[in-house]
Amino acid sequence: MEENSCCGTRKTHRDEEQYKKLKNRLNRIEGQLRGISNMLDENAYCPDILIQVSAVNSALNSFNKELLSEHIKHCVLNDIREGKDEAVDELTEVIRKVMK
Amino acid sequence: MEENSCCGTRKTHRDEEQYKKLKNRLNRIEGQLRGISNMLDENAYCPDILIQVSAVNSALNSFNKELLSEHIKHCVLNDIREGKDEAVDELTEVIRKVMK
Amino acid sequence: MEENSCCGTRKTHRDEEQYKKLKNRLNRIEGQLRGISNMLDENAYCPDILIQVSAVNSALNSFNKELLSEHIKHCVLNDIREGKDEAVDELTEVIRKVMK
Amino acid sequence: MEENSCCGTRKTHRDEEQYKKLKNRLNRIEGQLRGISNMLDENAYCPDILIQVSAVNSALNSFNKELLSEHIKHCVLNDIREGKDEAVDELTEVIRKVMK
Repeated sequence: MEENSCCGTRKTHRDEEQYKKLKNRLNRIEGQLRGISNMLDENAYCPDILIQVSAVNSALNSFNKELLSEHIKHCVLNDIREGKDEAVDELTEVIRKVMK
Repeated sequence: MEENSCCGTRKTHRDEEQYKKLKNRLNRIEGQLRGISNMLDENAYCPDILIQVSAVNSALNSFNKELLSEHIKHCVLNDIREGKDEAVDELTEVIRKVMK
Repeated sequence: MEENSCCGTRKTHRDEEQYKKLKNRLNRIEGQLRGISNMLDENAYCPDILIQVSAVNSALNSFNKELLSEHIKHCVLNDIREGKDEAVDELTEVIRKVMK
Repeated sequence: MEENSCCGTRKTHRDEEQYKKLKNRLNRIEGQLRGISNMLDENAYCPDILIQVSAVNSALNSFNKELLSEHIKHCVLNDIREGKDEAVDELTEVIRKVMK
């Protein structure tokens, strides 16, 4: 069993470094979102909240780009090497769903 | 002092119903984000995470559209009625920042 | 009848400068699009086309931001001053449609 | 030399059907854009133009999704099969650029 990737039963085994990197990003985004919730409690001015929500959106987009890149570099590449070409259809399908 | 809106010291006083509506949306989005964090802990398959992150992005966009609408209907409308036309420049500025 | 704006029968009378500015932008975007069509004829590499299409999208977004700003600064502002508050609902409606 | 794809000197040889499909889409989008230009000449109401520009944006996004899918299914897949793994880095790079 390979360390870095692989997608047998529709699981992705990420190595420690990659996991931590993604987890840290999510933690930061959760923090931003709690900040927005506090702004709402404190009657923050609408435009100030709008800007912060927009920043969370950008952070989530970056997260998704990173995750998609890792997915292609590990899962999809391995699958194709092993002759599982259906990985390609699955990839184009998910790109259609997440690309706006 | 008006109840429903007003933006004196760059604060927005939302009425109880509007506050709860926005707060509930944010709570739901925070829940979705925690779910994604759990997916990461459980080695969820990349495409499954990508789809969920994309759903959070859509929810945040809806939140922002709602908030921007309320902002225009209350703060901006009141400001213009009171002759504070600078509200219009501020509005176009924030729209430029949050519109992708 | 005012020169700069006004939206009587759902028409917008733009002044010459504003009209030319918007028209020039559209002409440039049409040129970009013809360029992409030529790239396709010449078997251009997919990623090169993808980047160009993405550039056209950005140009159209900028165009829309400019047009929306002008709309708010002229039509919407005038309508509100004249007590036609339905302009606000119409504005939030169109923002919902064009904001992604 | 394969018919359907291949990306030797950074060219993509599309088959007749695929070429026509993409070309038709672009022609339609160019028509939409000319329509918008005419709307501007006829003093069309801003919100009406905004909606049409937004529709062109959606059409361009669909075009890009289609083109990216074809790129992955042909060029990238072939490259990986031939051991040219740099195709993967190039793909993730272009996705980062065109994904918003």
